[in-house]
Amino acid sequence: MKNRNTTENNTQFIIARRGDVSGEMRFVAEREGLDPEFIRAEIAAGRLIIPANIRHNGLEPMAIGKAARCKVNVNIGNSPLGSGLECELEKLRLSLKYGADTLMDLSTGSDINGIRESLITHSPIPIGTVPIYQALQEVEKVEDLSIEGVLKVIEYQARQGVDFMTIHCGLLRELVPLARRRVTGIVSRGGAIMAQWMEHHETENFLYTDFGKILDVCLRYDVSLSLGDGLRPGCLADASDEAQFGELKILGDLTKTAWDRGAQVMIEGPGHIPMDQIAMNVERQMALCHDAPFYVLGPIVTDIAAGYDHISSAIGAAMAAQAGAAMLCYVTPKEHLGLPNAEDVRSGLLAYKIAAHAADVARHRKGARDRDDAMARARYGFDWERQFELALDPDRAREYHDETLAGQEFKTADYCSMCGPKFCAMNISRKVTGR
Amino acid sequence: MKNRNTTENNTQFIIARRGDVSGEMRFVAEREGLDPEFIRAEIAAGRLIIPANIRHNGLEPMAIGKAARCKVNVNIGNSPLGSGLECELEKLRLSLKYGADTLMDLSTGSDINGIRESLITHSPIPIGTVPIYQALQEVEKVEDLSIEGVLKVIEYQARQGVDFMTIHCGLLRELVPLARRRVTGIVSRGGAIMAQWMEHHETENFLYTDFGKILDVCLRYDVSLSLGDGLRPGCLADASDEAQFGELKILGDLTKTAWDRGAQVMIEGPGHIPMDQIAMNVERQMALCHDAPFYVLGPIVTDIAAGYDHISSAIGAAMAAQAGAAMLCYVTPKEHLGLPNAEDVRSGLLAYKIAAHAADVARHRKGARDRDDAMARARYGFDWERQFELALDPDRAREYHDETLAGQEFKTADYCSMCGPKFCAMNISRKVTGR
Repeated sequence: MKNRNTTENNTQFIIARRGDVSGEMRFVAEREGLDPEFIRAEIAAGRLIIPANIRHNGLEPMAIGKAARCKVNVNIGNSPLGSGLECELEKLRLSLKYGADTLMDLSTGSDINGIRESLITHSPIPIGTVPIYQALQEVEKVEDLSIEGVLKVIEYQARQGVDFMTIHCGLLRELVPLARRRVTGIVSRGGAIMAQWMEHHETENFLYTDFGKILDVCLRYDVSLSLGDGLRPGCLADASDEAQFGELKILGDLTKTAWDRGAQVMIEGPGHIPMDQIAMNVERQMALCHDAPFYVLGPIVTDIAAGYDHISSAIGAAMAAQAGAAMLCYVTPKEHLGLPNAEDVRSGLLAYKIAAHAADVARHRKGARDRDDAMARARYGFDWERQFELALDPDRAREYHDETLAGQEFKTADYCSMCGPKFCAMNISRKVTGR
Repeated sequence: MKNRNTTENNTQFIIARRGDVSGEMRFVAEREGLDPEFIRAEIAAGRLIIPANIRHNGLEPMAIGKAARCKVNVNIGNSPLGSGLECELEKLRLSLKYGADTLMDLSTGSDINGIRESLITHSPIPIGTVPIYQALQEVEKVEDLSIEGVLKVIEYQARQGVDFMTIHCGLLRELVPLARRRVTGIVSRGGAIMAQWMEHHETENFLYTDFGKILDVCLRYDVSLSLGDGLRPGCLADASDEAQFGELKILGDLTKTAWDRGAQVMIEGPGHIPMDQIAMNVERQMALCHDAPFYVLGPIVTDIAAGYDHISSAIGAAMAAQAGAAMLCYVTPKEHLGLPNAEDVRSGLLAYKIAAHAADVARHRKGARDRDDAMARARYGFDWERQFELALDPDRAREYHDETLAGQEFKTADYCSMCGPKFCAMNISRKVTGR
């Protein structure tokens, strides 16, 4: 989108409530094949957001809400133990190539301001951050954190053009003891940091008490708030417990506060959840958080899939999306084991593109199945080039096909190496059905 | 199981109906943590089978039924375009290592009798086949197939010790025209072969008309029948159509026929199914097939995931298992593209171990979550060796962890390269919660 014309203190939510349709709304309406007025109404109701910092030049706005196509977020970023600018830009490049809808830069290592600036410059998709990470980096220890330090970081990142920020404002002091009963305690980095800060200072979470000051900054740049789930369960045994739902209730209250001021809000969700509790979790979020878009991390549906958690969580993510989650935060094969590299980013993203798309089909979104149907026709027509083109990852599809039948003559062959010509069902079927 | 003591014309179903508990029933009861009498009753009701050919020496019997843990089948086998004995034995070795519950040898290439014999000898898990493949290999063209040829193959394979066989006996001639309306026609190899035969001879499917003769052989060796879904949908657009459910109805009728004779039966299912139709498909199968165990292939939940269909289908498989499917037939990343190699077998199997286990947890099977809980404790205790041990694929988990932190000192480190020590949530959480 070439000309961003929104101005300070003029969020998409405020514009929508005023009854106006912004350029951003028109852009996403076109993209989603939906009516601009419908998009406006969804935003005004709080059910849909367009994370679009007024300073993010080159942004192509993205709709996140149940009425829109289900979105996929990619987490990248370095850690004190690995990666740098070039490697993170490569992850962005792959994320864009394979269709990420948003990208969070979770860097906690060196040169994080520089990495973020470069990512924003090169990214047409919305960029998200977790400001508490940088705030912690700038002090010696957790106990030294303060609202002033965090506000400074939020302001700095907002000026850079960050489109949405995770704020762990729902983890109240009274909820921390509930985490003591758990098998894996607190597994959110932001959540654990705030819990430690509260325990030390014996006072309430400043992200909660000073939520209004955070809103001041976010409203100025139209930074969307992604209310963080600091108490998300870190294993199946801890799922759907009092700690998790206690925090979710607070996030619902803060959603109202943010809406009253005019800010855009989505809610982050778990984590590790058995399959039979996933739909219930989505319904609970909708009820407690007044239908604000739900942005779920996985959920992972078994704890024993280390090395394959992009798959264990894609199962949960697909089910969450089918139940109404608006955006899925991907998980890579390295989850629980180490920092993902570029190839892991690709693997995680593809697993989630599958989950989101399968849910779009299951929810009967207009046109969602068109590409599937085109693929089916290409398969039955043995049009291999068209099959590669229609695949979510054309490179991988071609590579796997060519591994056994590499020659150009096989690109029009009416079989593949799975069955060979005599045993190809589609080949025989075409003779039988005459088409 | 050292001493198989079942005899000819004495299937597990007949024994169970007689009120006796066989050694095989006791073996699986022990394995599943269930009462032997309960297993017997489930078998007698037709809800559970133990595919255990009396000639398969060294078999460790496996229970397939809704009351038991959800099982995973691995398909291997060569094609006219690739692989041989050594490669197939390597696939068996990996399948056993990573926990396959049954294995189907779908070879259609060279030396298939030799490959099958070797696989049975080396396999403690039940082995399945699709006899029509070999029958077709032994004639020049599809039109030359005959019931005599197929019976000869079934007898030969039964004597070798094959535990279950796919028979495409439900694809009646009257159903073929229904497939003409489809986008991808008939995508089952067995189904397409029988359709072509029927069209040529203008007569009914001999696997249906001579079903009794097939039962004669299967009863003698206690070969379990896996009633094939020759009309399974090959794309989302064809899912849940008249052709599919028309055949399923016939399979239900044949189930009764088989039970009347004393044979063990399970029913094969689709295929390509949108997420919102999966539970309905499982319920339909149970109703039409009188609760005979449902053995589903995937289902794949989107057609555009070429190169990642182990994932697109693991999503569907998990949901089918949650809805009550008894066994999942894996799909590899090469599906729709080429013949899987050993590494593809591993990838497909792991995706399905996750799906089956997640469904066991969701169905609240006794003890199903124990290993997850142990993993959660190992994670919170930073016991890396124990985490690797508990993972479904310990080798992969260790490899991914060691990619960034290889040294022995990191095996007791209270962080990994994802976050490093300062940002590790669990590390901080332990300080806060005091455990």
